[in-house]
Amino acid sequence: MDDERDYGALDAFLREAGRDGYLLHASADLADQYYLSGFDAPGPFVTLYTPERTALLVSGLEYGRATNEARADVVRRYADYDYHALVAEHGREEASRRVLAAFLDEFGATDVATNERFPLGVADDLRERGVAVTADRDDVVGDARAVKTETEIEHVRSAQQANEAAMAAAEDLLAEADVVDGVLLYRDDPLTAERVKEEIEVTLLRHGCSLDETIVACGADAAEPHNRGRGPLRVNEPVVIDIFPREKASKYHADMTRTFVKGEPTEAAREFYDVTERAFEAAFDALEPGATGADVHAAVCDVYEDAGYPTLRSDPDTETGFIHSTGHGVGLDVHEGPRLSEGADEALEPGHVVTIEPGLYDSAVGGVRIEDIAVVTEDGYEDLTDYPVEFVVE
Amino acid sequence: MDDERDYGALDAFLREAGRDGYLLHASADLADQYYLSGFDAPGPFVTLYTPERTALLVSGLEYGRATNEARADVVRRYADYDYHALVAEHGREEASRRVLAAFLDEFGATDVATNERFPLGVADDLRERGVAVTADRDDVVGDARAVKTETEIEHVRSAQQANEAAMAAAEDLLAEADVVDGVLLYRDDPLTAERVKEEIEVTLLRHGCSLDETIVACGADAAEPHNRGRGPLRVNEPVVIDIFPREKASKYHADMTRTFVKGEPTEAAREFYDVTERAFEAAFDALEPGATGADVHAAVCDVYEDAGYPTLRSDPDTETGFIHSTGHGVGLDVHEGPRLSEGADEALEPGHVVTIEPGLYDSAVGGVRIEDIAVVTEDGYEDLTDYPVEFVVE
Repeated sequence: MDDERDYGALDAFLREAGRDGYLLHASADLADQYYLSGFDAPGPFVTLYTPERTALLVSGLEYGRATNEARADVVRRYADYDYHALVAEHGREEASRRVLAAFLDEFGATDVATNERFPLGVADDLRERGVAVTADRDDVVGDARAVKTETEIEHVRSAQQANEAAMAAAEDLLAEADVVDGVLLYRDDPLTAERVKEEIEVTLLRHGCSLDETIVACGADAAEPHNRGRGPLRVNEPVVIDIFPREKASKYHADMTRTFVKGEPTEAAREFYDVTERAFEAAFDALEPGATGADVHAAVCDVYEDAGYPTLRSDPDTETGFIHSTGHGVGLDVHEGPRLSEGADEALEPGHVVTIEPGLYDSAVGGVRIEDIAVVTEDGYEDLTDYPVEFVVE
Repeated sequence: MDDERDYGALDAFLREAGRDGYLLHASADLADQYYLSGFDAPGPFVTLYTPERTALLVSGLEYGRATNEARADVVRRYADYDYHALVAEHGREEASRRVLAAFLDEFGATDVATNERFPLGVADDLRERGVAVTADRDDVVGDARAVKTETEIEHVRSAQQANEAAMAAAEDLLAEADVVDGVLLYRDDPLTAERVKEEIEVTLLRHGCSLDETIVACGADAAEPHNRGRGPLRVNEPVVIDIFPREKASKYHADMTRTFVKGEPTEAAREFYDVTERAFEAAFDALEPGATGADVHAAVCDVYEDAGYPTLRSDPDTETGFIHSTGHGVGLDVHEGPRLSEGADEALEPGHVVTIEPGLYDSAVGGVRIEDIAVVTEDGYEDLTDYPVEFVVE
């Protein structure tokens, strides 16, 4: 078990709420599940966390591996509760439900808290069998995950280094491209968003990371922050490249955005970039333990509004300007606590790993975003990203 | 909307259960969500399916894209229900819950069915607001998804073609490797499971597929069916390569396994392979509309047991022999209905896409598995996989 982890708040939560334990029923894709169990399995399995012990319930096929790999004190398998006899008598589904009930019974768990997204069918079935099940809306495990240990910070740093290699590979394609009739060509073919994404993803793979959806968005596409981009890239238009890989070995994420122009940006785009750089710096100036996410976001809104751009703070319905929040936590999930946004009123603390990602968007101009990841430290922060912030690609 | 889809069973379910609609609260990673909404978004959004219409509730940031891309009759956004005013008065979380309730109210949904894994916190909150919420344990949408249209079959076929390219790339590495002191070398470095996986994944990427966890398991590692394998590959030992990619554009999966030996297999391993080939053929002989998944699985168990190997049918506690089921459906999920296993008593029908994957496992011998994907047709089946079944790599 990782000695650095602190489950004090989770234990206090269970005690104060009068719960016997915290129950998860999910695959390792659920960050809370992988965090508490340390077990990477593709199908849903069961974790019961109590202050006394962590117990897992897994399939027979996963049992050996779970015993070796999980951060559990106890590992049970379905056969331990006579699963096959139950299947013969009641069928697979009823048998599974009875086994889960027997598992909880073995560990004295008659009143459990669960994550917010715990499966409804499983919860209602347990309730029918007399187990009290209550979804924890305060995301206690998420809060624990938001404060990273040194080991976890290393994982994020490592993933970000892979990310930097991928960003460099993307930037190299842009730099090497020729411009013919306003369109970028790479080795005689149009340089498309798809081609750049492929290069990014292959680079990440060779650095031990996986990634599902890269954003390489050009011009008006980039004016929609979630538009992932497609088609040929064009000269003089900003290209937003946003990469958020996951390191396969550790399952920790990284996140980075750079915006590039091949050729000559318009004056409006150049101004977007300059103001965004200033907003980026203002965010880092505000980033320190004791500040709130709302403080950091407000610092960015101040810069944009002072420069005459709408933000969601000055105009909640605006569809141009600064139309998202300043950042979010990154870890086992690519989006997790803490948030750097309006209303985020909990103090930042050392170990919080957050993105800083101001941006400006207008379909008449395009989109610009600059994003790094940083960890909050005792004195302020440490930027975990080592990549130049430059607009025009030579 | 895809004209070929048949929602008759879903509509009948809702009618018979007296439900106003089927509610989903999930990202597009949930296959049912992507299937019903046609909307690929990373964060959870809401789909309400009723026989009259499909309605989506999405964030402001996703609204434009949802309107263009989703297979919805109606798209609503949080702002349509005064979200910002609600946030100011009640905070983000309460505001979100009130908006969801208002959305359901707009469409007259006071009694909804949900998928089994619907989030507990959302369900309980709706219940507090007077909406009846019941998890559907019969997986009605999953049943609909199990029968593929021609378009969907094409997606799986296309993903499997990418898979074949990846398997060939992996086999080529094995073929080109030299053997030095029992270990495989590729260009002077040990040929590791990791290196083969990287080649597989890069090939898949270049064919428009993504993949998270490839299995390249050698020798005793392969005796554990879920062991993903690691380290240097060794001569004369079976290497199980199991690849299950997802085509990025369509989100449909494929699945294929081949087992290779570089050098000379042991007699026991050779026998494992020969019997598994016969089991493979027996499974296909049994695969036809009207047969059940249990029938197909039984045909495989018959071959293995007749050859003297234990199966889960003959010995539910065995840890060697044929220790998993014969196959599973493949589509938007890599594991979905129908199952080819003991107790699977529903008739197979045209449009079912299933794996056929018999295997034998024993840590003293290693592991062998052979897997194709096929679609059940009016007359029998069509194998969607075009890759030789051969053991020894030259």
